[in-house]
Amino acid sequence: MSAVRCSICKMRILFKHALFLPCADAQPQADMCVGVSNGVVAFVGAQPPEGFDPDRQIDCHGALLMPGLVNAHTHSPLSLLRSGGEGLPLQNWLEQVIWPYEARHTAESCYWGALLNAAECIRSGITCVCDMYIHPQSVARAMSEAGLRALVTPTVTDALLEEIPNLLTQILHLREQWANHPLIRIGIAPHAVYTCGDRLLSAVAKLAERYDLPIHVHVSETAREQQDCLSQHGVTPLARLDSFGLITPHTLMAHCVWLSSSDIDLAAQRGATVVHCPRSNLKLGSGIAPAEDFLRAGISVALGTDSSASNNSQDILEEMRFASLLQKGTRGDPALLSPAQSLAMATSAAGPATGFSLGHLAIQEPADLILVSRREPHWQPGLNSQADLLYAASASDVVLTMVNGVILYENGVHNTIDMERLYRTLPRFHPSVM
Amino acid sequence: MSAVRCSICKMRILFKHALFLPCADAQPQADMCVGVSNGVVAFVGAQPPEGFDPDRQIDCHGALLMPGLVNAHTHSPLSLLRSGGEGLPLQNWLEQVIWPYEARHTAESCYWGALLNAAECIRSGITCVCDMYIHPQSVARAMSEAGLRALVTPTVTDALLEEIPNLLTQILHLREQWANHPLIRIGIAPHAVYTCGDRLLSAVAKLAERYDLPIHVHVSETAREQQDCLSQHGVTPLARLDSFGLITPHTLMAHCVWLSSSDIDLAAQRGATVVHCPRSNLKLGSGIAPAEDFLRAGISVALGTDSSASNNSQDILEEMRFASLLQKGTRGDPALLSPAQSLAMATSAAGPATGFSLGHLAIQEPADLILVSRREPHWQPGLNSQADLLYAASASDVVLTMVNGVILYENGVHNTIDMERLYRTLPRFHPSVM
Repeated sequence: MSAVRCSICKMRILFKHALFLPCADAQPQADMCVGVSNGVVAFVGAQPPEGFDPDRQIDCHGALLMPGLVNAHTHSPLSLLRSGGEGLPLQNWLEQVIWPYEARHTAESCYWGALLNAAECIRSGITCVCDMYIHPQSVARAMSEAGLRALVTPTVTDALLEEIPNLLTQILHLREQWANHPLIRIGIAPHAVYTCGDRLLSAVAKLAERYDLPIHVHVSETAREQQDCLSQHGVTPLARLDSFGLITPHTLMAHCVWLSSSDIDLAAQRGATVVHCPRSNLKLGSGIAPAEDFLRAGISVALGTDSSASNNSQDILEEMRFASLLQKGTRGDPALLSPAQSLAMATSAAGPATGFSLGHLAIQEPADLILVSRREPHWQPGLNSQADLLYAASASDVVLTMVNGVILYENGVHNTIDMERLYRTLPRFHPSVM
Repeated sequence: MSAVRCSICKMRILFKHALFLPCADAQPQADMCVGVSNGVVAFVGAQPPEGFDPDRQIDCHGALLMPGLVNAHTHSPLSLLRSGGEGLPLQNWLEQVIWPYEARHTAESCYWGALLNAAECIRSGITCVCDMYIHPQSVARAMSEAGLRALVTPTVTDALLEEIPNLLTQILHLREQWANHPLIRIGIAPHAVYTCGDRLLSAVAKLAERYDLPIHVHVSETAREQQDCLSQHGVTPLARLDSFGLITPHTLMAHCVWLSSSDIDLAAQRGATVVHCPRSNLKLGSGIAPAEDFLRAGISVALGTDSSASNNSQDILEEMRFASLLQKGTRGDPALLSPAQSLAMATSAAGPATGFSLGHLAIQEPADLILVSRREPHWQPGLNSQADLLYAASASDVVLTMVNGVILYENGVHNTIDMERLYRTLPRFHPSVM
């Protein structure tokens, strides 16, 4: 697999006649050329520079060339449970469906689940995924084979308490294994305050600090989580995590539906990133995160799909649309969450926390980009392409997905994943068989 | 155009190996055959009956065959203003963009705008549209040429007060003109309580009753509309409309975001249909309609996109997803708005008010159906196809749209609309040119 990537990587690709959106807050420029070489953007301009001899030219007439989308919170292997156990109340769903199935997850099932998720992400224009799950080696392998950029954060909980030293050693081992990989970073995911006690939170914080591991944690997803933590510990989940030193500029805080106003101030002060998952929060009845308040406080707000077992698709364009419309609708202000703000959430916002350079197509930056066709009727008459992208575009409009200069998907064809083999294999992990 | 439709209409088409969903509250049946002849469903079964000699066979392996989607509230010609004037607050948007542009709308621009909207609807699996706009003859012509089933309701307001008798005569004339058309029905649309005074509401009610015209009206879209009506008339918009006899089983009430609990009881008593437009209501900052309360009261709740100037796409699958997730999320109950309830809103709910037979694929019922491909990753592993449809499907998964036995769209090709010509013509109606 890495052989495939490297061989394609050497190609020089010239995108011509693109409507080019270099980053969220820029104006799109018409009829632009973008060159890609050695995995990075080699140039941007009206014409290619002299001496650039492309191996391949791609005519982008009628399409938008823009930074890839970032899915900053998901549990990839749970794609295997998409639409399983629907209609059950949350607790029954967890107890009767998710947990029993998860208990049977193996390294192999997690690999195939992650590969299915990677295929869906790639097909939806996502070029970077922040994953939180067990069997992280399987996830990292699937993501690297698929050619996706990924922050892989192994989940740790008290249920694995006896294994803490061993578990943490495993994470360091995983980190060493992937240390030189151009696309994969390893972080650590203390699951949440209600599943991690003092000893674990303390050990995780030390490890994260010593080895510079990005931290990925569920924070204040439900009102009950917020209340229980206040009752048991006298502080909010965010304050509790912070007391262990877990809220840092390298922390992704998923959900944050119920943050208090002092939580918001604290998060802003610490420079941590919120990952807003609007569809999952609605579907599970958790509520609507105050994304506008986060932005006003100066917090970086990224978007996540959460797993396909609670959403049920890996579609960041749709998360972006939900995020923007929910703030306008519930606060009665149609001017909130502009296209530029919304697009930053979908592309660049997770950059600082993950350590990846995300959301900017500039010279020498990674060529993580997508080509979005504007031919479908919902893009007509084309008065404002950023608004069309935010309010009307569909993940299916993505016709090309490139990561690090490699074309992973183009016009219905996956270059890095054998989709027939994947679909043939999935029935082995049906809940009735597992 | 009608020649084209009639010639195709005579074809006998056999859909084979379909996952068949006959209506919203049924279980999908695997490997079914559905025959279409003379515009209606001729049979449904494991095998075609003896003697059925199809002109064409369509292999539906891996696809869901289901009733077409219904867009029960839109203003088709406003597709020309998609993404125009974005980011402006509501009043500025209306005053600076929408109204000045609308004032320049002609029969010709409305025709092309409606045709663009028809193309998008067809491509998104919508087989029936309830339109409310000026230049209704243009809308009816575009819809009939496109082959869509449509309730066309000319907008009337006090701005046209001096012309009332003439206006109403024109509507009757339009109705006569389309009386024998198999797909087009003409209704009447008193715009809203804040644009229609006593004289007009009274005249409309008389006309509607005498000529059995479906009524289409905006009701309680904003808090201000509700408040202003209470201040000025001492009653809610719904009660005011009802006092003129305008709330009937043949009334489509668009929006209803701010209905009071007594409004809900009254609507239920009158047997009128609510058209819930969740995305438009969010985008304009109007709020979230209490759809769950409507359903509990026994009100029929359909879905509408509203115009592409305030949404910005004609995508009923996405409206369905928003409707379901919003109720779960804002009421903290993940069991609300099940797949079956949501699907009924998207397919059958507008039937009684419009007078069309909608949302049921049974023998001798109109063959208004769509084929939805389940090949994309977001449909895998396929544990529950109704949940996949509600939570993960994309309008782009629709690979075939049929109305009255005529295939309007198939695998990227529009059979009834010359898309190249349409796209060539649209620049003539750019806001800077109009």
